[in-house]
Amino acid sequence: MSFVSKLRDAWARSDSLLCVGLDPDPAKLPRCVRDRPDAILEFCRAIVDATADLVCAFKPQIAYFAAQRAEAQLEALIAHIRARHPGVPVILDAKRGDIGSTAEQYAREAFERYRADAVTVNPYMGFDSIEPYLGDPSHGVILLCRTSNPGGSDLQALRVGDADAGAPAGERLYERVARLAAGPWNRTGQLGLVVGATFPAELARVRALAPRLPLLVPGIGAQGGDVDATVAAGANDEGGMIVNSSRAILYASAGEDYASAAGQAARTTRDALRDALRRHRRPV
Amino acid sequence: MSFVSKLRDAWARSDSLLCVGLDPDPAKLPRCVRDRPDAILEFCRAIVDATADLVCAFKPQIAYFAAQRAEAQLEALIAHIRARHPGVPVILDAKRGDIGSTAEQYAREAFERYRADAVTVNPYMGFDSIEPYLGDPSHGVILLCRTSNPGGSDLQALRVGDADAGAPAGERLYERVARLAAGPWNRTGQLGLVVGATFPAELARVRALAPRLPLLVPGIGAQGGDVDATVAAGANDEGGMIVNSSRAILYASAGEDYASAAGQAARTTRDALRDALRRHRRPV
Repeated sequence: MSFVSKLRDAWARSDSLLCVGLDPDPAKLPRCVRDRPDAILEFCRAIVDATADLVCAFKPQIAYFAAQRAEAQLEALIAHIRARHPGVPVILDAKRGDIGSTAEQYAREAFERYRADAVTVNPYMGFDSIEPYLGDPSHGVILLCRTSNPGGSDLQALRVGDADAGAPAGERLYERVARLAAGPWNRTGQLGLVVGATFPAELARVRALAPRLPLLVPGIGAQGGDVDATVAAGANDEGGMIVNSSRAILYASAGEDYASAAGQAARTTRDALRDALRRHRRPV
Repeated sequence: MSFVSKLRDAWARSDSLLCVGLDPDPAKLPRCVRDRPDAILEFCRAIVDATADLVCAFKPQIAYFAAQRAEAQLEALIAHIRARHPGVPVILDAKRGDIGSTAEQYAREAFERYRADAVTVNPYMGFDSIEPYLGDPSHGVILLCRTSNPGGSDLQALRVGDADAGAPAGERLYERVARLAAGPWNRTGQLGLVVGATFPAELARVRALAPRLPLLVPGIGAQGGDVDATVAAGANDEGGMIVNSSRAILYASAGEDYASAAGQAARTTRDALRDALRRHRRPV
């Protein structure tokens, strides 16, 4: 099954645009798990089991595992999701980007070692740095387009022109990435885009340029993005969005009830997203 | 000691601009080590010991280790370089790039876990995605600018203007990155730039925009960059370049003499770079 089909099924089954981001920061883990062996795995597994019915995807952020020498726990976590919640796609948030021969190794890391359904990739190095991830339709590749951080504007908002002409068209760099990803770069139908919820006008612009691409949207919750404005800007007829929340769900409680508190926070966010989608769903 | 000072000392001591890239591809390892336990570590350690006197840096490429579940071997390899060849800086080629809270985790991965002297970082997400790596001057941060792959042109060669003005100045995206890295982004003096040897005219342009920044230059050897043209374009009065070669040195022989063959290949490349530097060294 293709990544996009798996995602569509997950949207339909869960009636949810919510993705729970698995960013296990050791300093924020509840005291009751912090000192356990494999604390990261235990914590994330409990979050996953408490929220799996409420989400269209999980997104483990590999940096949090790598900083703690917890690669084996990340492998075990993804294996757990695949075994217990097989309909929920796993997006490995790694933001890799390198020349072809090295990108092949990163593709192996994401899809063979970790068995993720999709991986995030940085487009700065161009199409031949993306190509090694393509070919097997069961794999999704989600390119950074307009990121949620303030510094995202430093390069992504620049006006760009042609490489070999003096006069640019006025399109911005993130719009160029969206147009390439919706067109010539997407021959295999595996691409999606990362667009932050913190810039709803730019999210709407990306949706206009890429009507059918799945959009991975971080930035609601701790980063301040507004749910209604986000869904109004980014939804299409099938949902079309993977709206990520990490900290607001993971750390909803610092006590022993952390998993049920995460489930409750996920339900509240899922419902808010669902209500907003009912208001704003529109045909392509 | 700052990263830049360590690098200057290494340039002076080795009289070399050569950096050996440690990209251990299991399919290419000599038969005599391929099936040994910790084959990757054994292979890379032998290459390091055979070339340490001839280089200004080593650059392990983390993707090759991650694809093989060999993080522990990468830690051991860097520990070996620091113990046995303490004057040779280690650049972890990871091309990370993420929002601040995640970038902090990647900085921990590079500098605390692996104890690298420097790390490569992708600038697409802007300055606040780079800032978490800065602060401790013993750490270098080498930003992707103009990469050596053909697809590097897709975005990096685009003409850019101001974010909020319709009329751009005609500068290209990689030039903007070079100018930011040589100016406002380099308050701590920790930055360098990645510029491919495959585009000597663009290397010269980056050198003009960033006269004092260390340039990490991949693309000679297997990728086809020319040594003399590369040094002519990128050198400054202190050398200023970290010229990477990986495959041509690592796989100089597939036999039991692989380490001495790597040493010989490194010596030949070091000498060619040194001769070119004598021809082209120039004051800033």
